[in-house]
Amino acid sequence: MNLLLISNSTMAGEEYLSWPRLFILDFVRENKIKSIAFIPYAGISLSKNGLNESYDIYTNKVKTVMEQLGVTVTSVHNTGTPADIIENSDCIMVGGGNTFFLTHMLYNTGLMEVIRKTVIEGKPYIGWSAGSNMACPTLKTTNDMPIVEPQSFNCLNLIPFQINPHYLDANPDGHGGETRQQRIEEFLIANPSVKVVGLREGSLLHISDDKIELKGSKKLRLFQFEELPMEFNPGENLDFLLK
Amino acid sequence: MNLLLISNSTMAGEEYLSWPRLFILDFVRENKIKSIAFIPYAGISLSKNGLNESYDIYTNKVKTVMEQLGVTVTSVHNTGTPADIIENSDCIMVGGGNTFFLTHMLYNTGLMEVIRKTVIEGKPYIGWSAGSNMACPTLKTTNDMPIVEPQSFNCLNLIPFQINPHYLDANPDGHGGETRQQRIEEFLIANPSVKVVGLREGSLLHISDDKIELKGSKKLRLFQFEELPMEFNPGENLDFLLK
Repeated sequence: MNLLLISNSTMAGEEYLSWPRLFILDFVRENKIKSIAFIPYAGISLSKNGLNESYDIYTNKVKTVMEQLGVTVTSVHNTGTPADIIENSDCIMVGGGNTFFLTHMLYNTGLMEVIRKTVIEGKPYIGWSAGSNMACPTLKTTNDMPIVEPQSFNCLNLIPFQINPHYLDANPDGHGGETRQQRIEEFLIANPSVKVVGLREGSLLHISDDKIELKGSKKLRLFQFEELPMEFNPGENLDFLLK
Repeated sequence: MNLLLISNSTMAGEEYLSWPRLFILDFVRENKIKSIAFIPYAGISLSKNGLNESYDIYTNKVKTVMEQLGVTVTSVHNTGTPADIIENSDCIMVGGGNTFFLTHMLYNTGLMEVIRKTVIEGKPYIGWSAGSNMACPTLKTTNDMPIVEPQSFNCLNLIPFQINPHYLDANPDGHGGETRQQRIEEFLIANPSVKVVGLREGSLLHISDDKIELKGSKKLRLFQFEELPMEFNPGENLDFLLK
């Protein structure tokens, strides 16, 4: 397996997919990727004229970036058979947005099983935000609003731990809601055997078979039931997460 | 019906259930409430020694406050039959915490239907945070992490609109995740016929039959599909929300 799991597409105020671009380029070169099948289903709010136009706009944003890296992009949402587009592309790319809507659509289109099988057989996978959530056993550590009820909370289950993307250390001043850490600790009470990686904005995980590397500018925060959270720097060995 | 739907139990840095206490006291007096059946199921992280102890601690926190207001509190979680405790109390109180866990437990215990029926027949209902979410048609506008998969996203359906409790205007500085408004706008794309009330911390809705009042120190923000968000002050007529 070969996965690039990115916390967030874009840092506040920067150009779209700016900070992870060089990491994506490395991944594209290593894996000789010329063509990408894009899954836009999480991006439902880019147009006021319906989902199809929203997905068109989303695809074009991603295409603009990826073509600069020498890669063609075909979305699964409007032409041809999604499973064929995936089969005929060198890589699957799952964009961020609403994780519940993405999950709902992957079940409705039958792509949940197609993507899982294809990635396990070796096709590279790039995801960010909801697209990183999707690689986990379930969607249970998403930050997103549950705007639709998906067929199941089970996701692609490509890795044996959960990612919390956009991991955030504090609440805005004066806000009394739960912190992210409190939310993850609640997850662990309900799911004590599962590890959770808090992936801060500006960082990503590169997973190839039994190797896992943290890349970017931030530490990762690891949560396990009844243990204190632990911080890991880029470069530290994290392969135990895959066992 | 007689509902007190509170955004949040406690403002950051204040004593537990401090800001809404006088509003709760008014509600208790108006409805001649002497006894409360407390639903603690959302509060799963108050103890490291398991759910039962967490619920005990939660119940005691609420009891301490409510006894000062002359009201006895019996939790449904550890003694007697939950449905009997509800039947023998003057009011149902649903505490905050994790909305998904609360929903999961209300289905598992059969209380979802019992509470709905009892409140429609006239028993007063007080909820905050997850307890306010629970009064809505579904849990789809909660802010909580989906740590368990409940039997259904459908909730008590006591009111015809959705509440987003702990409504927050901005992200922390420099954070690139979706704002609360963007999340609610995504909800509206997936659920265009449903209104959403953003209920800021420090405010509550008092609903009696066909009357609805906003109380507290903040405006409410109303979201409807394809309309600009609208702000309402305490005292403004909001009865259209119940139609």
